[in-house]
Amino acid sequence: MNQRIESAKHDLAQSTGAPAGSSAARSWTTKRDEKRRRLAAIEPWLEDGILPAHRIVDALETLIRPGDRVALEGDNQKQADFLSRSFAKVDPQKVHDVHLLISSISRPEHLTLFERNIAHKVDFAFAGPQSLRVAQLLEDGQLEIGAIYTYVELYARMFVDLTPNVALLCAEKADRHGNLYTGPNTEDTPTIAEAAAFRHGIVIVQVNEIVDELPRVDIPASWIDVVVEADRPFAVEPLFTRDPRHIGDLQVLTAMMVIKGIYEPYGVTSLNHGIGFDTAAIELLLPTYGESLGLKGKICRNWTLNPHPTLIPAIESGWVESVHCFGSEVGMEGYVEARPDVFFTGSDGTLRSNRVLCQLAGQYGVDLFIGSTLQIDGDANSSTVTRGRLAGFGGAPNMGHDPRGRRHSSEAWLKLLKDEGPVSRGKKLVVQLAETYKKGGEPTFVDELDAVAVGAKSGMPIAPVMIYGDDVSHVVTEEGIAHLHKAEGVEERRAAVAAVAGVTPIGLRAKPEKTAELRRRGIVAYPEDLGIRRGEAKRSLLAARSIDDLVTWSGGLYTPPARFRSW
Amino acid sequence: MNQRIESAKHDLAQSTGAPAGSSAARSWTTKRDEKRRRLAAIEPWLEDGILPAHRIVDALETLIRPGDRVALEGDNQKQADFLSRSFAKVDPQKVHDVHLLISSISRPEHLTLFERNIAHKVDFAFAGPQSLRVAQLLEDGQLEIGAIYTYVELYARMFVDLTPNVALLCAEKADRHGNLYTGPNTEDTPTIAEAAAFRHGIVIVQVNEIVDELPRVDIPASWIDVVVEADRPFAVEPLFTRDPRHIGDLQVLTAMMVIKGIYEPYGVTSLNHGIGFDTAAIELLLPTYGESLGLKGKICRNWTLNPHPTLIPAIESGWVESVHCFGSEVGMEGYVEARPDVFFTGSDGTLRSNRVLCQLAGQYGVDLFIGSTLQIDGDANSSTVTRGRLAGFGGAPNMGHDPRGRRHSSEAWLKLLKDEGPVSRGKKLVVQLAETYKKGGEPTFVDELDAVAVGAKSGMPIAPVMIYGDDVSHVVTEEGIAHLHKAEGVEERRAAVAAVAGVTPIGLRAKPEKTAELRRRGIVAYPEDLGIRRGEAKRSLLAARSIDDLVTWSGGLYTPPARFRSW
Repeated sequence: MNQRIESAKHDLAQSTGAPAGSSAARSWTTKRDEKRRRLAAIEPWLEDGILPAHRIVDALETLIRPGDRVALEGDNQKQADFLSRSFAKVDPQKVHDVHLLISSISRPEHLTLFERNIAHKVDFAFAGPQSLRVAQLLEDGQLEIGAIYTYVELYARMFVDLTPNVALLCAEKADRHGNLYTGPNTEDTPTIAEAAAFRHGIVIVQVNEIVDELPRVDIPASWIDVVVEADRPFAVEPLFTRDPRHIGDLQVLTAMMVIKGIYEPYGVTSLNHGIGFDTAAIELLLPTYGESLGLKGKICRNWTLNPHPTLIPAIESGWVESVHCFGSEVGMEGYVEARPDVFFTGSDGTLRSNRVLCQLAGQYGVDLFIGSTLQIDGDANSSTVTRGRLAGFGGAPNMGHDPRGRRHSSEAWLKLLKDEGPVSRGKKLVVQLAETYKKGGEPTFVDELDAVAVGAKSGMPIAPVMIYGDDVSHVVTEEGIAHLHKAEGVEERRAAVAAVAGVTPIGLRAKPEKTAELRRRGIVAYPEDLGIRRGEAKRSLLAARSIDDLVTWSGGLYTPPARFRSW
Repeated sequence: MNQRIESAKHDLAQSTGAPAGSSAARSWTTKRDEKRRRLAAIEPWLEDGILPAHRIVDALETLIRPGDRVALEGDNQKQADFLSRSFAKVDPQKVHDVHLLISSISRPEHLTLFERNIAHKVDFAFAGPQSLRVAQLLEDGQLEIGAIYTYVELYARMFVDLTPNVALLCAEKADRHGNLYTGPNTEDTPTIAEAAAFRHGIVIVQVNEIVDELPRVDIPASWIDVVVEADRPFAVEPLFTRDPRHIGDLQVLTAMMVIKGIYEPYGVTSLNHGIGFDTAAIELLLPTYGESLGLKGKICRNWTLNPHPTLIPAIESGWVESVHCFGSEVGMEGYVEARPDVFFTGSDGTLRSNRVLCQLAGQYGVDLFIGSTLQIDGDANSSTVTRGRLAGFGGAPNMGHDPRGRRHSSEAWLKLLKDEGPVSRGKKLVVQLAETYKKGGEPTFVDELDAVAVGAKSGMPIAPVMIYGDDVSHVVTEEGIAHLHKAEGVEERRAAVAAVAGVTPIGLRAKPEKTAELRRRGIVAYPEDLGIRRGEAKRSLLAARSIDDLVTWSGGLYTPPARFRSW
């Protein structure tokens, strides 16, 4: 800091009584300087600006320092697995106490980082298949959880107090300048890159291939520090493929009720579907049952969701105007590329997904979220935590709530307006789908969510509830629809939940006379109230009944992963 | 569509009964084809890939078709004014019935578009200085409002059902490939560009300058179709500059209460300040009053806000770890560039702002929003609409609500947890600041918000409320703090609001014995309850008392716009 400033500050302190000079010796470029210092140390290893793959462990040992916050791309789908495998090989004497920021703990080596004492603390959004190991490491004191988030919450904090010192990302291709092509699986890469690159974090990217010219640029080279060609293409999971073979008659019935009892009367044109067989059934009924109701063009036009293969028949039948995607889906690349009127695609023809923007669209721009759940309590709180383990939140809570920062109206949103005086407002439709009993014979409707016990056992400050009951507008089971937003008061709300909870303990509390009243008042609707005969609800109504059917509908453009073809 | 697909579909229809062939003759590339067709028509006018400025009106007449949705950058701060001025000159015989998507209707020519019948429908977020003309055009039937939004809601719909056919954007520089440098005012450009570019919209960008090499790339050329050099640099307003001269003793008192009564006990480390003299006072008290309380490092470390000049003393005194910005602020560029440890800056050294990501950070990543308002009712609903006109929402509602999609905990957030059984959760601190009476002698606390009448008069489906009372945790006036989240039930909540509403009609309803009880229970706190003597609250406590002081604190790095220097 130069003399002139110091002198000016001193004068100011004299004249205003303000403290001055407290930062006299402070440098304001410590982060930038440190980044330059670290990058200079690996400079000799670069060949034509690219880091040779065999140098990656050395480079990580040089670029990551003890105590660093490291963002590892661990997205919902794609995985920077060359970087995570390499990171797990660094010398813990050199790199330790790392604070890992990761959307999805989904690969074994993510936890090897903790077993080898390279990382110690973690902030994450989803642990899925690794959740048992997370619990074990937590108990053994080898892993400390900062907090458990939804995806976008974790990114939000990357722009506040959890800015990454180093980001380990992945893309399909890079050119020799370091420009990146993410291809259809853009997902979270631009967001994490932005958080790191603009706060002097070091951005390291693995690519499948280095080319002279990119099909398009998804992320500019100005944001990228190190590019390395991976030993093999990045790992990515087909998480959004549901084989129609596994959709049963009960799911067809529920889907019919949703279309006739919710989508039609509320005029739902823009929406987000969670992933599950229930919602897949709805997608597959649009071109058949939906068509027979004359609803084409009136409902389900604009979507925010991954490219679900089960949406193909509705797209081919002309139901779908647009789909904006959080990520991509393995096998759907060619189909998406051939349907640019529907999907967001780039000048090169392939999908551009973007989780943060799709979450924004799903939160503020659509009128309905619908998703399946595994447990619901009498107040319609729900959770997918049922196996005594901590799986995390993913993205559903951001879609499955009434966004209180919304100020624009729409037809569907206004239908949930309850007149509470001059300051009233509409609501988002948040629909929870569930069968009253799960396959194993366990009731779905319970007095207390397993999440309460799991949260307490894991030392979480609050129970890991996925969707809160007071955000839920509708619960739909094979028994019927509960229009919770129409209920007056807590007790009536509970009676409406009970009325569709079948013979579960919650359902057995329903009083027949109250249920009859709720049906009269349109708060509860059973299939017969909607003019749906249970006998009609057959798998044969599905527009596609197998993965093969989906491939046929797509004209061979959809190429399912082997595991789905072998069934 | 080729024979093989048609034949496959036919087979499927036979076997599944699914309707097939309904889209037999359908092209799936209509949008892309139309874009190519329009761009080909202006191809002959391009010189070395750049559109000469004198051709801009011709180009807009060619690239925009009647009925198109056109996104015009009209941000909160920067304006694509060369493009908007040129757009207003097109022949309405050629271009009419345009549906305008614009964040901020802030320039006269934005409405000339409607007067000249070029545009007819508009979706917008803020109309500020042009709001009277908007109301007039609405009454005359020359303008139709789709809806009024917050900024991010409008962008959300650009990824759903309001994808732009054409986007008119602005940047500082472009290179000859079409890569863009937005400089410190990135704001909304990448978001709107992404919405248009990846759904076959035509992206037209005005730049101040075309250069051989950019300082950094903010948006890749792959997303941009037409670059034109503007006749003069884009317009941008210094909206976040508050001259400390206008901060009075009452605002100092309120600011002291906020620091001692909220920031300290709740442990508020991450936050967003609205723009106003009240919050400027807080910023200017941190290095003086805050320091005397020993709070440095304990509160107010991580910020999401534009680079407020009044934050300079706190930054210089070492209070601030990070600031992520929605946009920039005129005159702050050099200061920000010299403080890269604090601000998000690029490899070129200048600020990278991003409204959508800062909104994400402010919604999910920080624990407190505080903002001034002009009117509050007895339930703590508030609005800045008080002059009988429709100004819109801007960004405050997205910050000023409890984000129900949040799942991670923090110390401050958990302090608002009310034990309501096993499914309880924390809350965001949402603080509304107001003086009980406005300058003109009008009460701030009213029985019914003016917004209710304005909404009804303008035919809005619901009243344009800025912040809803049930989201507000605290109301602070010169009288004291109402901790609304601690109140039990609606009536007690109202009593707490009344207790700080002074001698307004609402305040006069306060019952002394109830107020005394609320103070005992810590639900209401008056200055004396916090150990603050009203006589202490003097302007002399401000770390800077003029724009000149701010310049001095910055060591001359802050260069205020002329209008502030002349005062």
